[in-house]
Amino acid sequence: MRATVIHAPHDIRIEEVPDAAVREPTDAVVRTVLACICGSDLWAYRGVASRQPGQRIGHEFLGVVEAVGAAVTGFRPGDLVVAPFVWSDGVCEFCVEGLQTSCPHGGFWGTPGSDGGQGEAVRVPFADGTLVQLPKEAASDQHLLTALLALSDVMSTGHHAALAAGVRPGATVAVVGDGAVGLCGVLAARRLGADRIIALGRHEDRTAIARKFGATDVVPARGEEAVAAVRELTGGSGAHAVLEAVGTEESMRTAISIARDGGAVGYVGVPHGGSAGVDISQMFDRNVAVCGGVAPARAYIPELLADVLSGRIDPSPVFDATVDLDGVPDGYRAMDERTALKVKITF
Amino acid sequence: MRATVIHAPHDIRIEEVPDAAVREPTDAVVRTVLACICGSDLWAYRGVASRQPGQRIGHEFLGVVEAVGAAVTGFRPGDLVVAPFVWSDGVCEFCVEGLQTSCPHGGFWGTPGSDGGQGEAVRVPFADGTLVQLPKEAASDQHLLTALLALSDVMSTGHHAALAAGVRPGATVAVVGDGAVGLCGVLAARRLGADRIIALGRHEDRTAIARKFGATDVVPARGEEAVAAVRELTGGSGAHAVLEAVGTEESMRTAISIARDGGAVGYVGVPHGGSAGVDISQMFDRNVAVCGGVAPARAYIPELLADVLSGRIDPSPVFDATVDLDGVPDGYRAMDERTALKVKITF
Repeated sequence: MRATVIHAPHDIRIEEVPDAAVREPTDAVVRTVLACICGSDLWAYRGVASRQPGQRIGHEFLGVVEAVGAAVTGFRPGDLVVAPFVWSDGVCEFCVEGLQTSCPHGGFWGTPGSDGGQGEAVRVPFADGTLVQLPKEAASDQHLLTALLALSDVMSTGHHAALAAGVRPGATVAVVGDGAVGLCGVLAARRLGADRIIALGRHEDRTAIARKFGATDVVPARGEEAVAAVRELTGGSGAHAVLEAVGTEESMRTAISIARDGGAVGYVGVPHGGSAGVDISQMFDRNVAVCGGVAPARAYIPELLADVLSGRIDPSPVFDATVDLDGVPDGYRAMDERTALKVKITF
Repeated sequence: MRATVIHAPHDIRIEEVPDAAVREPTDAVVRTVLACICGSDLWAYRGVASRQPGQRIGHEFLGVVEAVGAAVTGFRPGDLVVAPFVWSDGVCEFCVEGLQTSCPHGGFWGTPGSDGGQGEAVRVPFADGTLVQLPKEAASDQHLLTALLALSDVMSTGHHAALAAGVRPGATVAVVGDGAVGLCGVLAARRLGADRIIALGRHEDRTAIARKFGATDVVPARGEEAVAAVRELTGGSGAHAVLEAVGTEESMRTAISIARDGGAVGYVGVPHGGSAGVDISQMFDRNVAVCGGVAPARAYIPELLADVLSGRIDPSPVFDATVDLDGVPDGYRAMDERTALKVKITF
């Protein structure tokens, strides 16, 4: 089969790789229908996060079950399924609690020895614990399929940020970052009943989506200027809940600074700035909490899926470009150069 | 009147100062009955936290109301009262929400222009918003008074740490720090229904109090060794809730490392190590939250007071030495040299 392989920073290739196959009785093989490129894939693309040369890449996909191992009971060939961005066994104490990202048998698509999501098929370990069933009818509805693809990571991650930040009905929320996760964070905050949602972002095409998703205010500034703008919009107090969806030192510093005293930053941006953005003295004096981390998408997909199917939320606008498998290197380039927000891959 | 004054690191003096007096209609004057020395006073004593030469010091006291301003409605001369370690107006949005430490009219005892708690009397701004009434009968019960004095800071702060860390019935809790706040954190965790409480501390007289307060396990190690010990005690998982009551880089690092995935560190140790102890990458991968800060003691005193009066909790064992006002410099020395845990001041 063919799949996306990363050889070095900026060196993404589509190559022939061994066919995905059932190896363990708990495995399934999923033939990919849709996949996409993540903002966090760019950390590898840019060489900020290291990868072994020749490693697979991609962690968001949905598709059709092609084969299952003897121990798989919840799925059978022909099922339409979406995968969260990590696999998990579904039975350990963490999985039972809904923190599947801490499953001791879990793993991240594309790590050495596993298939990545940006390929024609994927061997899915612990299929029963990992995959979520989608209605078969969705297969013929490209718009709906696109919305469902967002559950794999960005919509679930935005939801995690909103939960971690403690978004409640009536809350004032600020969202740092206008990437796909930040935008989904806006949508999640609205879904959780936020009254006012301030989106921080400077790309007008993106903030337009933020407004469509429920942002009531847009702050195009950065750093100190952004802090001042959010303070002014909130009568000096700051936001009850701040979603940090970037992962840099500056964004974390901004997020903490615009939180209202007693509030929380829900951070989901993969941290690449050490801890320097975390100003513990400022947090201490104002009782600002820093919560969040890697989103247990598997825990959230069922409830978010219901809302996508009912039409209550539609995250599909975060995908603004589409490529086929051969176009994936171009897709990375477009996202790296910010000419695309999030690139969908069709098979 | 006479009060404690700090002139320079290690230079604490008892001096004649202007009498405390009602200046604003919302003021009260409280004649001090009991006060004490806080672990956080040692930061000033050691020169780690700067003070203006000649500044007053001390932020924990209870006493008898001597005079009230015309606008004070909740107190009158003769009332026995305890003060939280910050004053607050009681009417702003933060006070109403129970985050009195963020009151825009609030302040910390001993800041320039205000009286400190380690003096014969204290001018209390916003008496109605700040003070809490105690039963008059307590005045004749030295043991009870001592327990009530702990509400001013250490017991309320330990409770804040436990709340911030999300202590729930049945939880496994770890407490980093065997100072008075850490010990009160043990007591607060037990009060909130923790099932297992692991106290980290190496001073046997202190860990004996921890056991009396409800600690089920004691870990005398530090750093990596402590992390390994807590992991072993918890089947490898760590503690659901970790109370960080030290405020150094090492203690924060330890606290994060011993938290169970998905758990939280409730930190109340005044931070003096920058943000270096906050390992955001470790927090991210394991969804460990860092919550807490300066405790809104005023919010907690009423409920904790009820439990002290009923005998359900007794934090008095954290006081292991007593001095009179003239003995305060010796009290600082004893705490600095760790020959005393927490020094009570009688008047």
